[in-house]
Amino acid sequence: MEENKLRIIKVKESILEDNDADADKLREELFAEKTFYINVMSSPGSGKTSSILRIIEKLKDEFRIGVMEADIDGDVDTRTMLDAGVASIQIHTGGMCHLDADMSRQGLREIGSPDLDLVILENVGNLVCPAEFDTGAVKDLVILSIPEGDDKPLKYPLMFEKADVVLVNKIDALEVFDFDMDKFCENVRLRNADADIFPVSAETGEGFNAAAEWIRKAANEFLGGAK
Amino acid sequence: MEENKLRIIKVKESILEDNDADADKLREELFAEKTFYINVMSSPGSGKTSSILRIIEKLKDEFRIGVMEADIDGDVDTRTMLDAGVASIQIHTGGMCHLDADMSRQGLREIGSPDLDLVILENVGNLVCPAEFDTGAVKDLVILSIPEGDDKPLKYPLMFEKADVVLVNKIDALEVFDFDMDKFCENVRLRNADADIFPVSAETGEGFNAAAEWIRKAANEFLGGAK
Repeated sequence: MEENKLRIIKVKESILEDNDADADKLREELFAEKTFYINVMSSPGSGKTSSILRIIEKLKDEFRIGVMEADIDGDVDTRTMLDAGVASIQIHTGGMCHLDADMSRQGLREIGSPDLDLVILENVGNLVCPAEFDTGAVKDLVILSIPEGDDKPLKYPLMFEKADVVLVNKIDALEVFDFDMDKFCENVRLRNADADIFPVSAETGEGFNAAAEWIRKAANEFLGGAK
Repeated sequence: MEENKLRIIKVKESILEDNDADADKLREELFAEKTFYINVMSSPGSGKTSSILRIIEKLKDEFRIGVMEADIDGDVDTRTMLDAGVASIQIHTGGMCHLDADMSRQGLREIGSPDLDLVILENVGNLVCPAEFDTGAVKDLVILSIPEGDDKPLKYPLMFEKADVVLVNKIDALEVFDFDMDKFCENVRLRNADADIFPVSAETGEGFNAAAEWIRKAANEFLGGAK
């Protein structure tokens, strides 16, 4: 090879393009069957499972809800959901640190999405990879917790660019950590002009009326009335 | 769906199985063309690039060497290699946080592996995903740096299970960090009975004679003499 010349080869572009097209197709299928599908992403330990339980508490009388728990391995979150009486399945990604549209479709088929109004995906805990792959969800919800710091939108730009709504969890711990909420919102705005931001605490339940109302509105807009 | 019954679906097993078979095929191709291919993995910032440069320094008079730099985006490490006069190419993984065997093959074709004796892959900086995907490399080298802590083999078992050789980098900083080398070696042994472990400092060059000797021996065994 010729030395000292910078050569860059791109080895996986086609996979991402194929997935984008498949994700659009999945959204059309979900629109046709009237199922609102929302993708929840965050770092490990930000409180995805407990936040989803708080949201279900608020919406369970209006929607038939199912939860898909995606993990490389393990089933602890699915057991938590089942113990709480929530219809849920475990998706093992077989080493993949993210879910793509076809993996989503396999999960939706298994959970029986045509008989549900609202399916919540708890994606693999990771602030990088899941943002790269469109799952076919109608909306993307990102959770950031106070101990992670207010600078994360600067370090993980794509995740915050993709978010339709951001929950800032563990606000009950605001006094213990050096977290500037205004600064965090500014940092989100650098990446995303539109995402709504809701401070919440899955521990105390604070803030989940507003967060659930956002999801209720988005679901009703997509569903356009009951099945 | 039936509620309260734990259901687990595995969505990507076939991809991993296909990749394992393809990786074995790639190793056969490399054996036929007499190219020793080594995969270097670590967290971001453990010193992969500077360690590779130290190794090349020791081996460049005996082997024709090429380096493949795999990153989600960017080209900073390839520029470093080219500036040091090392034949290298940049592989962009298109959002993927790992390299699989086919992506490896594309890179090897581009760098011209039949004309090289030794190709070093600097994998994407990540202690999780790259361990799941066999790149087709003949040997896997894992770097752990002192500031990361001696408990990492417990938290990232697969990475240390897969390692043929482990470099413990930044030993020049041993006095500053609470890192117990004996404990680290014990933790590696819980996952891996065979991997050789070399304390090194890419900063000072300490330890790289032994590390390079390990690679020299492994390469000569695989190549069975010159091309």
